[in-house]
Amino acid sequence: MLSLPPSWTQQPPKPDTLRIRQATDRQQALTKPPGSLGRLEQLAVQLAGLQKTEQPTVDPVRITVFAGDHGVCEEGVSAFPQEVTAQMIANFAGGGAAISVLAKQLDASLEVVNLGTVGEVPELPGVRDEQIAPATANLAVTNAMTEDQVCAALASGDAAAERAADAGCRLFIGGDMGIGNTTSAAALACALLNQSPESLVGPGTGLDTAGISRKSQVVDRALKRHGDNTDPLTVLASLGGFEIAALTGAILGCAARGIPVLVDGYIVSVAALLGVFQQPALRDWLLFAHRSAEPGHARVLEALDAKPLLDLGMRLGEGSGAAVAVPLLRAACALHNNMASFADAGVSNKDTAS
Amino acid sequence: MLSLPPSWTQQPPKPDTLRIRQATDRQQALTKPPGSLGRLEQLAVQLAGLQKTEQPTVDPVRITVFAGDHGVCEEGVSAFPQEVTAQMIANFAGGGAAISVLAKQLDASLEVVNLGTVGEVPELPGVRDEQIAPATANLAVTNAMTEDQVCAALASGDAAAERAADAGCRLFIGGDMGIGNTTSAAALACALLNQSPESLVGPGTGLDTAGISRKSQVVDRALKRHGDNTDPLTVLASLGGFEIAALTGAILGCAARGIPVLVDGYIVSVAALLGVFQQPALRDWLLFAHRSAEPGHARVLEALDAKPLLDLGMRLGEGSGAAVAVPLLRAACALHNNMASFADAGVSNKDTAS
Repeated sequence: MLSLPPSWTQQPPKPDTLRIRQATDRQQALTKPPGSLGRLEQLAVQLAGLQKTEQPTVDPVRITVFAGDHGVCEEGVSAFPQEVTAQMIANFAGGGAAISVLAKQLDASLEVVNLGTVGEVPELPGVRDEQIAPATANLAVTNAMTEDQVCAALASGDAAAERAADAGCRLFIGGDMGIGNTTSAAALACALLNQSPESLVGPGTGLDTAGISRKSQVVDRALKRHGDNTDPLTVLASLGGFEIAALTGAILGCAARGIPVLVDGYIVSVAALLGVFQQPALRDWLLFAHRSAEPGHARVLEALDAKPLLDLGMRLGEGSGAAVAVPLLRAACALHNNMASFADAGVSNKDTAS
Repeated sequence: MLSLPPSWTQQPPKPDTLRIRQATDRQQALTKPPGSLGRLEQLAVQLAGLQKTEQPTVDPVRITVFAGDHGVCEEGVSAFPQEVTAQMIANFAGGGAAISVLAKQLDASLEVVNLGTVGEVPELPGVRDEQIAPATANLAVTNAMTEDQVCAALASGDAAAERAADAGCRLFIGGDMGIGNTTSAAALACALLNQSPESLVGPGTGLDTAGISRKSQVVDRALKRHGDNTDPLTVLASLGGFEIAALTGAILGCAARGIPVLVDGYIVSVAALLGVFQQPALRDWLLFAHRSAEPGHARVLEALDAKPLLDLGMRLGEGSGAAVAVPLLRAACALHNNMASFADAGVSNKDTAS
């Protein structure tokens, strides 16, 4: 009997329609032409509905980076060596990685969950040791994970959501670190969306054309082995990664606990797609931060009916694109909560135009 | 003899090519796949070159909102009554306007320069009284400003740049407030770019189709009166507004003093276009914050070869779109200045991939 988190089998709560209506009315009353704050208005309204409040906020923000190694690296699918996964965990803890710098600047709490790396990771502050195995199996030749391993990874993600809820966090960002994980993400998205590898495989950290072609063939072999099953648990076990499964568990776990999720780039979007396949009502809880330069991201976003806030050509992972978008949500909340109304400020409204 | 600020007739300084090369090299050495921070990398490099430093920063940020009324309002070109310009100045000072909320959240200094309003503005903290006249003349029937008035407005803008420099500001945002100013901006852009009113006139604060058509006819009359002169000073006098001329003066004045300018939406982009027509080297000093929902903005951005950072459907003015983009620049600087290099963090680089 598999031990799955409750959020895997239970629908997440629905947004509060009364709060959405109140927030929409408030946006009409603020001292600006109606609609002139564009998507910032919609963000504030969405957050008010999800957080069931008149005063939406994203603080405190929790960022959890999930790290894990991928057996498929033995196929030569990455521009960087596999040891980088473990080395980057140390860099996260040391403050030198992009997400470390951004978390500090945002005053967001950052935690790293190590789900299993080939390289050794010493005990480090801010890093949780939740290793499942040194790496997944090579998804080109066999199932990447056992179902027990998938459940362990989902549970790690759910536990991260629980910690975020316990800390009173109002927004969750999941990040990924795992050399080889764009190969797994592409395979997952192909299986779920019935796409060809060519449409979803990209350069990742920096493959050249020959490398992309090789990576595409690896995904093709994996898909032939996998077949046409689209059950999220089966697809995850067959083609996933520890960190991707944990991200899916964290995203579902946050929605179950009433915490909106700001989705990062390619890897996290695929984890979110798995969550939406499992629980379609999860979609309400997702805000999309940025459009990755990884070409397959566009297809995944389309499947999620998502229009990200930023399009800056980022493709780093770690949750970095989502972190960069946090101030847009903060601005949306501040404007919604703190602007004066026409009545309060004694400003003539549009209807009074001569 | 007209009294023009020196920045009107003198070229702005050039970016520092050595600092640009150093910053580019540094971006290659940081612990991330090369290029994976996308436009954030380019922003840091551009700011390093403009600020002639290894450690670019945008703080302190200065936001100056220039306000002025437009005689063309008597043609019924706006969805809001003219009294709103003066009322909004009070709202800026009172903290209830969008730009007030954003400036406070950003910890940016906000000042408002009143260049002339039909409505009365009492003495208010943070508002400078630099009134030229209650409003410009109706540009549909006569020159909007005398050349002396244009010079006074340019000088007001230049003085704002001088104050920003004296305060040690590292980034300047200009904002606009003036009922009717999208009519003036459209007329200016049509004259400079030899475009038809239809391609540059939009709804502004919220005109319907009939209103846009009427506004387009007003701009058409103005352009027929104006003729085909594209000299920036002449065009400003003929078709401009006090706040638009002041913005042009402020933008040129900032570049002359080594302060990069983060350009807001439609109105400020037209002011920047006038500056670039006068001093083409000004273009190096401009960063573009957002693409306005006002349809004519796209044409102006194209003329400036500008790809803004954000596209959130904003169309408020006040410098609000630029304020929302400030955290992106802060993130770019923090990442550039504070990330670890591969060597420092002991992370294997791409070249060592097996």
